[in-house]
Amino acid sequence: MTKKDIILTGDRPTGPLHLGHYVGSLANRVKLQDSCHQFIIIADTQALTDNFDNPDKVRTNVFQVILDYLAVGIDPQKTTIFIQSMIPALCELTMYYMNLVPFNRVLRNPTVKTEIKDKNMEESVPFGFVAYPISQAADITAFKATIVPVGEDQLPMIEQTNEIVRAFNRIYQTDVLVEAKAVMGAGKRLPGTDGREKMGKSLGNAIYLGDPADVVTKKVMNMYTDPNHLRVQDPGKIEGNTVFAYLDIFDPNKDEVQALKEHYERGGLGDVVVKRRLNEILQAFLEPIRTKREAFAKDRAAIDQILIDGTQRANEVAQETLDQVKRAMKLDYFA
Amino acid sequence: MTKKDIILTGDRPTGPLHLGHYVGSLANRVKLQDSCHQFIIIADTQALTDNFDNPDKVRTNVFQVILDYLAVGIDPQKTTIFIQSMIPALCELTMYYMNLVPFNRVLRNPTVKTEIKDKNMEESVPFGFVAYPISQAADITAFKATIVPVGEDQLPMIEQTNEIVRAFNRIYQTDVLVEAKAVMGAGKRLPGTDGREKMGKSLGNAIYLGDPADVVTKKVMNMYTDPNHLRVQDPGKIEGNTVFAYLDIFDPNKDEVQALKEHYERGGLGDVVVKRRLNEILQAFLEPIRTKREAFAKDRAAIDQILIDGTQRANEVAQETLDQVKRAMKLDYFA
Repeated sequence: MTKKDIILTGDRPTGPLHLGHYVGSLANRVKLQDSCHQFIIIADTQALTDNFDNPDKVRTNVFQVILDYLAVGIDPQKTTIFIQSMIPALCELTMYYMNLVPFNRVLRNPTVKTEIKDKNMEESVPFGFVAYPISQAADITAFKATIVPVGEDQLPMIEQTNEIVRAFNRIYQTDVLVEAKAVMGAGKRLPGTDGREKMGKSLGNAIYLGDPADVVTKKVMNMYTDPNHLRVQDPGKIEGNTVFAYLDIFDPNKDEVQALKEHYERGGLGDVVVKRRLNEILQAFLEPIRTKREAFAKDRAAIDQILIDGTQRANEVAQETLDQVKRAMKLDYFA
Repeated sequence: MTKKDIILTGDRPTGPLHLGHYVGSLANRVKLQDSCHQFIIIADTQALTDNFDNPDKVRTNVFQVILDYLAVGIDPQKTTIFIQSMIPALCELTMYYMNLVPFNRVLRNPTVKTEIKDKNMEESVPFGFVAYPISQAADITAFKATIVPVGEDQLPMIEQTNEIVRAFNRIYQTDVLVEAKAVMGAGKRLPGTDGREKMGKSLGNAIYLGDPADVVTKKVMNMYTDPNHLRVQDPGKIEGNTVFAYLDIFDPNKDEVQALKEHYERGGLGDVVVKRRLNEILQAFLEPIRTKREAFAKDRAAIDQILIDGTQRANEVAQETLDQVKRAMKLDYFA
């Protein structure tokens, strides 16, 4: 990635962010904001596609998510943070891109298929939900993003975006739109506290960046370890042991972690001891984040201003792309 | 219809307008502009859903269509004429409405189904084309239209609009959106010159409002009559005879038309005689329209200004509705 790279990344504001977000993407964003032009979209319009009947949830979490960004060190002077629904150009681009995607193609999108199944929406899936890969193509191309950090399950979305880019540039004989590169594996995947592969807002297995200290302790002490490690003196398993997975990521002292693992496998090391260590490390990690988060939360006017400024910058860029798109489509009637 | 009624009507700019448009809707619009608030949408965005690969055609016809409007007497001081793609709020409303329509519902829209079949688009139908009933709901509701003049085949579109209105107002506990009433039969249906039920741009059976006099004469003299009326002295049929269908509509002297019909049915009246009469009447009808059309065509700056002014007025109304919609959806973050 070079200084010229433009990154588009973001979150659906359907809940506050958690350690899984930090490990999977936030840490990477903090790093990248110095070397790239980074846009972070708070995707409220997209969140509404399957939360349209709960607008309060979406609105509330727009503010939760920005607090999380600021608390972990995303700097609004370096990164453009904006609210999707306040960028009209994104809707306009979506409308024009919808013409370039065969109807059947949208239904074949593996990500959409899986999500519809996971959310039990088969019968009632809203039209807008099925359309969201096209809306995501608008998000990415509006900012001419060259880099989109993704998980493996999001690869089909970038494919769809680039298909639209190529179709648009070919049909309208232009080079206005830019293909994006999916970058995988920039972040790590953190398992849920229950041992499930993924930490998820809706799975009830998350440690939130804003969780109070006692809540964190409780979640850590209840974490999934080795279900067969019943007595301290017995040998325990490391593989699939969530506590060790977290230590691997958060404990800076790799040698000590290695020694703990060997002791645990030999037997004679209790879960509680290891959990207490993890708890100390996580508390130390989360404490400054929580403090910053609480300070920002008290200054709603400052938060508003950050969102207003970021959204204005994003609007300028997106509007410029839209103008170019409309010119290519001969829709610049009175230019 | 009362002075308080708001009408939304318009055309897809895919070709200049013809006598079928005049009889079916333009005449009615000229009448209604004195008693109602009338908005006329030049639906370029919608035209692009199935003409996305031919933007020149759409752009050119935006200007053809406005010439036709002005030539028949639509008065831009009384009627707001605007270009769809210049009203960003319509795209934003479409995005929000897409969440309120179950995916399967769109596919069941009879109008869309028929059009896909008629245009042989089964395999390649663009996503945007399938979505256009939702976009049309945005057009109608943005202006809080209470009246939408439609043909019978367009009734499902108004049903879809009103379903969205009811869903929106129910889910967001508001009365922001207004149901529209479909008004049928305000205009008459003019058959094509080839005797087919409908005059259509794509059917090659249209007499355009801007056709030169000699072209009109040629089209009239080639019109479909009674294919079995081979010799002048033979009896001819009135039913299905296009020339008489036109006389019924355009000839102000109903008694003479009645006498002609009886003569034709008895035998002894040749097609050429009846066609010459129709030609005279149509020439007299079209000549002032053509003259006005040519005069406007020479003043592109004036046309541009009419479109710019109308679009600005339309933008104000649509933006106000969008603001209300976003407020109801709790998307008014910094209000």
